[in-house]
Amino acid sequence: MIGAGGVAQVVAHKCAQNNDVLGEIHIASRTLSKCEAILESVREKGAMKVEGVLKAHQVDAMDTAAVAQLIRDTGAQIVINVGSAFVNMTVLDACIETGAAYIDTAIHEDPAKICETPPWYANYEWKKRDLCAEKGVTAILGAGFDPGVVNAFARFAIDQMDEVKSIDIVDINAGSHGKYFATNFDPEINFREFTGTVYYWEDQQWKETSMFASGKDWDLPVVGTQRAYQSGHDEVHSLSANYPQADVRFWMGFGEHYINVFTVLQSLGLLSEQPVKTAEGLEVVPLKVVKAVLPDPSSLAPDYTGKTCIGDLVKGVKDGEEVEMFVYNVADHKEAYEEVGSQGISYTAGVPPVAAAMLVASGEWDAKSMRNVEELDPKPFFTILDEIGLPTRVKDAKGDRPWNA
Amino acid sequence: MIGAGGVAQVVAHKCAQNNDVLGEIHIASRTLSKCEAILESVREKGAMKVEGVLKAHQVDAMDTAAVAQLIRDTGAQIVINVGSAFVNMTVLDACIETGAAYIDTAIHEDPAKICETPPWYANYEWKKRDLCAEKGVTAILGAGFDPGVVNAFARFAIDQMDEVKSIDIVDINAGSHGKYFATNFDPEINFREFTGTVYYWEDQQWKETSMFASGKDWDLPVVGTQRAYQSGHDEVHSLSANYPQADVRFWMGFGEHYINVFTVLQSLGLLSEQPVKTAEGLEVVPLKVVKAVLPDPSSLAPDYTGKTCIGDLVKGVKDGEEVEMFVYNVADHKEAYEEVGSQGISYTAGVPPVAAAMLVASGEWDAKSMRNVEELDPKPFFTILDEIGLPTRVKDAKGDRPWNA
Repeated sequence: MIGAGGVAQVVAHKCAQNNDVLGEIHIASRTLSKCEAILESVREKGAMKVEGVLKAHQVDAMDTAAVAQLIRDTGAQIVINVGSAFVNMTVLDACIETGAAYIDTAIHEDPAKICETPPWYANYEWKKRDLCAEKGVTAILGAGFDPGVVNAFARFAIDQMDEVKSIDIVDINAGSHGKYFATNFDPEINFREFTGTVYYWEDQQWKETSMFASGKDWDLPVVGTQRAYQSGHDEVHSLSANYPQADVRFWMGFGEHYINVFTVLQSLGLLSEQPVKTAEGLEVVPLKVVKAVLPDPSSLAPDYTGKTCIGDLVKGVKDGEEVEMFVYNVADHKEAYEEVGSQGISYTAGVPPVAAAMLVASGEWDAKSMRNVEELDPKPFFTILDEIGLPTRVKDAKGDRPWNA
Repeated sequence: MIGAGGVAQVVAHKCAQNNDVLGEIHIASRTLSKCEAILESVREKGAMKVEGVLKAHQVDAMDTAAVAQLIRDTGAQIVINVGSAFVNMTVLDACIETGAAYIDTAIHEDPAKICETPPWYANYEWKKRDLCAEKGVTAILGAGFDPGVVNAFARFAIDQMDEVKSIDIVDINAGSHGKYFATNFDPEINFREFTGTVYYWEDQQWKETSMFASGKDWDLPVVGTQRAYQSGHDEVHSLSANYPQADVRFWMGFGEHYINVFTVLQSLGLLSEQPVKTAEGLEVVPLKVVKAVLPDPSSLAPDYTGKTCIGDLVKGVKDGEEVEMFVYNVADHKEAYEEVGSQGISYTAGVPPVAAAMLVASGEWDAKSMRNVEELDPKPFFTILDEIGLPTRVKDAKGDRPWNA
């Protein structure tokens, strides 16, 4: 695995818990001490299922040759990339060069570009699709929760319909961290999601709105009625390519308080990545000061309570009748912390790529080509997720039940 | 005059318009170019009533000897101090040393102390009261609008009653600068007013509340119903000493939007004067970054529209009956800009000390001792203010009319 942040912590624990399937575990990032801290946490929890290798490495993931060398040195056959979204392409290139399978959880980003033209996957990853097929390299794109599990949710629902009309992905964090304000990920990354144009797919074309402009109340299992807003999100960019006849939208839940604080900071220019000069002549990037005064996202985990609910409302036609199905998961912050020392947001993002790796290892998802998650069979994915902490449920006209009930 | 900020700009214009009474005008501050810019603006408007001296000087107002030397060199007989509140005591000392009359518009502050014990005047200025009397030096404290004109408003109303029961000073800026958010003065000074304990005088004792905790709707002339909040303010600290039998409170108008932005910034720690360290290791004072992203207060003037209403609601007993009187002024932002190139807030603060200086020059207020404004006859003050731009009105059971109608 590449990366040593909050999601990497979850990935490491889950790999350890399944090392009978996955074999040797090597964790690499730019900062060795962060890898070692994760290994220490894995050992503390006694997470290794069977005895085996668990090792930390230093690597600059922006350097393809260095990553390829590390893959060769460790004999890694599967690379789970949960480093920053800026390193996707260099790590993917190293996998193509060495033949290792590649799994990531988010679209590649150029640090200098806030908002690129849709579909985003076409700007970077998909340009390597032919090369992966030619070389027989497995590359599974966006195998976190959203993107990732929600793509499988969509596929699962669509497989039971004759025709799909719309896919609405809804991501609600109904948890509470007890702070006045905090972001669940690095504020610098977190706020990037909300400052660009919101792209969505409707009437077979890309449409645009802006953050917090389009809101809707959703009545959801467990978490109840929650307000969510159309946001830009990776999965819209592959689902719309695979199901162009369907409307595809992503909705993220925000409380009024969050939106208010965000709006004040953005309106004042305090979320800017462009430096300003103080009266004393000091050049400062306002966003970095905001980050400095906000709680460290990893500090939230111990006191985080409540649940997340993420799911897909898929509408379509079956036997000539309009049907709809909500496929979803509910996760609990406190349970996540007790199991792997992380909050629920990191947990939902970190468990799925490990399930994907297990399916590559078993051969079920070893596609020898580049795939987005909806291009793979969702059932074995759900089966593993049920076992390792993220059970899938379905709610439709027939009731609310496990996906395979 | 000492100082070259927004209020100093108004003072300079008003001194120039009345230089037949005031004589030579010398403007001094740490930054000579700021003084020169003010002189340039005075010349542009052709503000000098008669030909005369108008000159800029560089001085460190924290240095008593330097200020005393400048007073001697210029032959200044009256010093209007509208520099930062941190220089009051050094400038006052220079006046006592040279015999020049001293006029200021705000209480002395120690930059290291946010909130001192009441009454504030007793911590610094009043310690020099005996010395002023002994040397026959005139020192008029707090002769801006609030403190200043509002102290005279209180005295005027009280003079017409047998007994005073309460003095509520209400300061409403119903103007609009058209920006998302801005402060009317330097944000570093402006926010200091709201971050400490709010002291008020009730039942013959000091009581405490906190900013925005005590709000009330006021129905006022011209600006209509406006919500104002109890705030700490200089004039409470002298009026309560002079009229200990009366309750004395100060109310400042704030819109919900202002309070919201302020609350977000303060809750996040972005108004802190204590440095934080960014992830990159840069030490930054958050308040200085907030100041850097906010509009420069002086940039607001050209587009500022609307009016201010500042007044005193005084309640008491007259001939055995309960009576009340609202003494007030309404000023207009746009008219202020057209006359002296400043917004209304600076205008209301800068005109009164010039009126005070004219009364010192005429002898009417040349008390040869230290006085707060309510310890001086308000009528000649109102007469001059009527003439130079800030007319006083009265509203009571008999109607709404000029103070002398």
